[in-house]
Amino acid sequence: MTYDFNHIVLMAKKRNKATIDTLTAVYDLLTKLNIDTHIDVTTARLLDLKKFPTINANEFKDNIDLAIAIGGDGSLLHAARTVVHQNVPILGVNRGRLGFLTDINPDNLDQITDVLSGQYTKEKRFLLYAHVQHDESTICKADALNDVVLLPDAIAHMIDFDIFIDNKCMCNLRADGLIIATPTGSTAYALSGGGPILHPELDSVVLVPMFPHSLTYRPIVIDANSEIKVVVSNLNNGISPAISCDGQPSIPLQTGDIIKIIKNRNYLNVIHPNTYNYYDALRSKLHWAKKLGQD
Amino acid sequence: MTYDFNHIVLMAKKRNKATIDTLTAVYDLLTKLNIDTHIDVTTARLLDLKKFPTINANEFKDNIDLAIAIGGDGSLLHAARTVVHQNVPILGVNRGRLGFLTDINPDNLDQITDVLSGQYTKEKRFLLYAHVQHDESTICKADALNDVVLLPDAIAHMIDFDIFIDNKCMCNLRADGLIIATPTGSTAYALSGGGPILHPELDSVVLVPMFPHSLTYRPIVIDANSEIKVVVSNLNNGISPAISCDGQPSIPLQTGDIIKIIKNRNYLNVIHPNTYNYYDALRSKLHWAKKLGQD
Amino acid sequence: MTYDFNHIVLMAKKRNKATIDTLTAVYDLLTKLNIDTHIDVTTARLLDLKKFPTINANEFKDNIDLAIAIGGDGSLLHAARTVVHQNVPILGVNRGRLGFLTDINPDNLDQITDVLSGQYTKEKRFLLYAHVQHDESTICKADALNDVVLLPDAIAHMIDFDIFIDNKCMCNLRADGLIIATPTGSTAYALSGGGPILHPELDSVVLVPMFPHSLTYRPIVIDANSEIKVVVSNLNNGISPAISCDGQPSIPLQTGDIIKIIKNRNYLNVIHPNTYNYYDALRSKLHWAKKLGQD
Amino acid sequence: MTYDFNHIVLMAKKRNKATIDTLTAVYDLLTKLNIDTHIDVTTARLLDLKKFPTINANEFKDNIDLAIAIGGDGSLLHAARTVVHQNVPILGVNRGRLGFLTDINPDNLDQITDVLSGQYTKEKRFLLYAHVQHDESTICKADALNDVVLLPDAIAHMIDFDIFIDNKCMCNLRADGLIIATPTGSTAYALSGGGPILHPELDSVVLVPMFPHSLTYRPIVIDANSEIKVVVSNLNNGISPAISCDGQPSIPLQTGDIIKIIKNRNYLNVIHPNTYNYYDALRSKLHWAKKLGQD
Repeated sequence: MTYDFNHIVLMAKKRNKATIDTLTAVYDLLTKLNIDTHIDVTTARLLDLKKFPTINANEFKDNIDLAIAIGGDGSLLHAARTVVHQNVPILGVNRGRLGFLTDINPDNLDQITDVLSGQYTKEKRFLLYAHVQHDESTICKADALNDVVLLPDAIAHMIDFDIFIDNKCMCNLRADGLIIATPTGSTAYALSGGGPILHPELDSVVLVPMFPHSLTYRPIVIDANSEIKVVVSNLNNGISPAISCDGQPSIPLQTGDIIKIIKNRNYLNVIHPNTYNYYDALRSKLHWAKKLGQD
Repeated sequence: MTYDFNHIVLMAKKRNKATIDTLTAVYDLLTKLNIDTHIDVTTARLLDLKKFPTINANEFKDNIDLAIAIGGDGSLLHAARTVVHQNVPILGVNRGRLGFLTDINPDNLDQITDVLSGQYTKEKRFLLYAHVQHDESTICKADALNDVVLLPDAIAHMIDFDIFIDNKCMCNLRADGLIIATPTGSTAYALSGGGPILHPELDSVVLVPMFPHSLTYRPIVIDANSEIKVVVSNLNNGISPAISCDGQPSIPLQTGDIIKIIKNRNYLNVIHPNTYNYYDALRSKLHWAKKLGQD
Repeated sequence: MTYDFNHIVLMAKKRNKATIDTLTAVYDLLTKLNIDTHIDVTTARLLDLKKFPTINANEFKDNIDLAIAIGGDGSLLHAARTVVHQNVPILGVNRGRLGFLTDINPDNLDQITDVLSGQYTKEKRFLLYAHVQHDESTICKADALNDVVLLPDAIAHMIDFDIFIDNKCMCNLRADGLIIATPTGSTAYALSGGGPILHPELDSVVLVPMFPHSLTYRPIVIDANSEIKVVVSNLNNGISPAISCDGQPSIPLQTGDIIKIIKNRNYLNVIHPNTYNYYDALRSKLHWAKKLGQD
Repeated sequence: MTYDFNHIVLMAKKRNKATIDTLTAVYDLLTKLNIDTHIDVTTARLLDLKKFPTINANEFKDNIDLAIAIGGDGSLLHAARTVVHQNVPILGVNRGRLGFLTDINPDNLDQITDVLSGQYTKEKRFLLYAHVQHDESTICKADALNDVVLLPDAIAHMIDFDIFIDNKCMCNLRADGLIIATPTGSTAYALSGGGPILHPELDSVVLVPMFPHSLTYRPIVIDANSEIKVVVSNLNNGISPAISCDGQPSIPLQTGDIIKIIKNRNYLNVIHPNTYNYYDALRSKLHWAKKLGQD
């Protein structure tokens, strides 16, 4: 029998029994199918897995045709930022509840066999690329599948900053911060901040001001192909804002620093089993009703 | 001298002195420039204007190359629904405050001369097309530049309805109603309902539930090329919902009725003077700051 | 054995098998305990109950010391507006999910025996009293346990109105309407409109503007002993607003009409079994977590 | 002539020319009226004022009958936390726009003479008192006229905490933080977070969850005489939350720490000139319309 994916790498992030058990079960399933299977080196180190063959992330490009991430949406985000540069598609195995990106139920690994046999859809998701300049030198570059967040060093201190879209001034904001989210990230942190849900097929990003000082600011959705520039104002006395991509540890900024955010050229290819349905995931996550009478 | 537009129709909706004065001033300006200028027949009747040459809306297509709407955004909406089917572009003259679509200040009609001389940009805006079916027969068809709104006969009675996107069930909602807004409409009624601002270049629509019974429903932005289907549930005892396009008088619905909403094939071409800037209009309308220290 | 309540009336609103079965079961339980039990005349007529002794609402005051309402929060609201004028306390039997006011589970009617034996707490809830004046004559008076709602004849038409608190101008509003809610009503319609939750012990009301035209209006909480006056502006051309108390059929208003809202002098006494806990009810209704790790 | 206040202290916080000029003008005005006037020692040091008689804060109680705070609402907050323990009333002189608490316009200091002559109203505002326990020992005590805020060390990390009201569990929250605001603080930071406005006469506090993980949490208003207890959960791995009172530098917390918040026994007495009107201040600050047609 032939499969659509024949060289697979397994990735995970959390060192706990459930993850190790699922990873081992997936490994066993794949090797039984005679699929060439490796564990990502960083994963092996993190989870202290010694008996599996490993592979380095920078070797994925030529040797791997599918990455399987095991864990929650956080683990998939982490794996995604690695595989996107290697042009390797990703499939998520969730532990427990249905995730937006991690569709495979660990109690039903047969779904993986179905995917390998061709019963899947491929969905393109874009990432953001943030680039921070201080005095004309670049101090940081980072990718984000969910969001780029501008935040203060302490929440009670408002930041003053200016937003430019394609070099046109959108506005000045005095707020606790700003969330710039992709459609993928629109159901994560941005949603808590009052942002709208963006359907994953949209080529748009949403800017959600956090606790704006004036009550008339609203989330605004713009073309993902725009260049967003956030300039930390010189009026911020004694405040040290920071940026964080996908909730990763934040990078401190200084007044006058410029954050440029554009769409990453590389797309992430997410593999979904054919049973996947975006609205099912949405309803499940947000406890929306499907039919009448369910309260 | 040659102009980009040589056959112009003037349109208005409100019968008051300010509108008539501005319309007369625009007429005088255009005839002085030797532009062939008419007044739309309906406008002439509504404002009781007798001394101007008139033209019927169904003759615009072959005889008119620009419509100038005089009034607020409401008047432009009204004119837009007429000219879009005639493929005639539209320019708005506002009375007073800066509008999103009506850019020309009546105190500065020289801007019209500038536009005629080629100093303008053309912006495409899409409309929605709503189509209501009752027992398989069509009971209503309407266009909307801003929004299609599902509403109850009395606000205190919740409506039960199901939403389908491209024939996939999105969810069931129990709410006071639903606003389906274009980017143009995103800064109108939908904004009061907590919807996001959609940049006018986006090919998206936003669905904003009105006072949903469950607290987890949020505005959702989807591709404008999707087919949206709203089915009024049979569970609505004694409630008669209705739909309204762009705030026009509403059309009553019965349980089981199906509202289909798709993007109108015809785009509206809006003419903006070169001084127009979307973010300027946004900041002005929403009282956003441009620079620091203004609040 | 002696009981705290010896003359009980049963009230209900919905004519369906579940309600009739529960009402009959409660009746049987009470008569077995030798409690003098009647059915409210209106209830008997509505549910077509012929074999029970009945009593008129205007006889409650001298003959009844407890009313038991069977149904959802809507049925209790209805019964409450009757018994409050008779100074009779009320106990709610819910059908199904935990209600805010209807605490007794129909599958566990022993809780009623516990209440009769003295295992209960009494909670005072206040009602609003709305009074509408047209040209100095009163056109309507009504009580509300949840809310008084000003609403337009059709949702898409904004109403202009002025709000005065103790004869001081609070503001002018241009909105779809206004919800004035008690603490009891703060978890009902007002919550869908973005209002805060008011703890039931508070002597406060909240004013929630509905879809206000300007984005800076917010829910405002004031002393329940204030006089609220809403004046429908003369600027409302062709709009006929209305008011509705507790979602009852609405009463049409004309421009210039004045709505006065004050606290009702009579309080409703709600009887809760000792197992009742407000925060339990809140968490259950709103799906809030009690402990970590539940979501 | 006799005055209602004869021993006055001047307080300020910001060292800049406008503040010093206004403070000097107020000093000159008062001494001309033969009022015994001092500058608070800390203010004199902060603003480097050497030629004025000074007085220590702990001597206010027996020697001072009015404090005048010069600056914005921030400066008044600062002065208020000092004078509240000395039982000295406070009057605010604002620089520029109308404040909620600083009513005197620096261009119209005659209003001060009016106040001294008895043309004023006295308004009681309560403060919160926060008390943090770590392993049964108190690690911090602080007052807040506006708010007590629980916040994470970095905004992107959610905090898990439990809220108890009078020792009853209200809920567990997973959020960026929690704002507990007085009526005075309800128009400050809590308002940006979606909280309601609480009329200053209310004896209530509002709890506003910040970016809660679940969408069903809402601001909740409770009796100010309740004891609020926030317990930082042991599940917060690697997160160090903190608390901040009135935006003062924050105090770091550890998992298991308990924050107790009660109403301060001492009230702040705010002196308002007779021209003061709360709703005027509200409309002015929030750009609400007073009359129709102002948009």
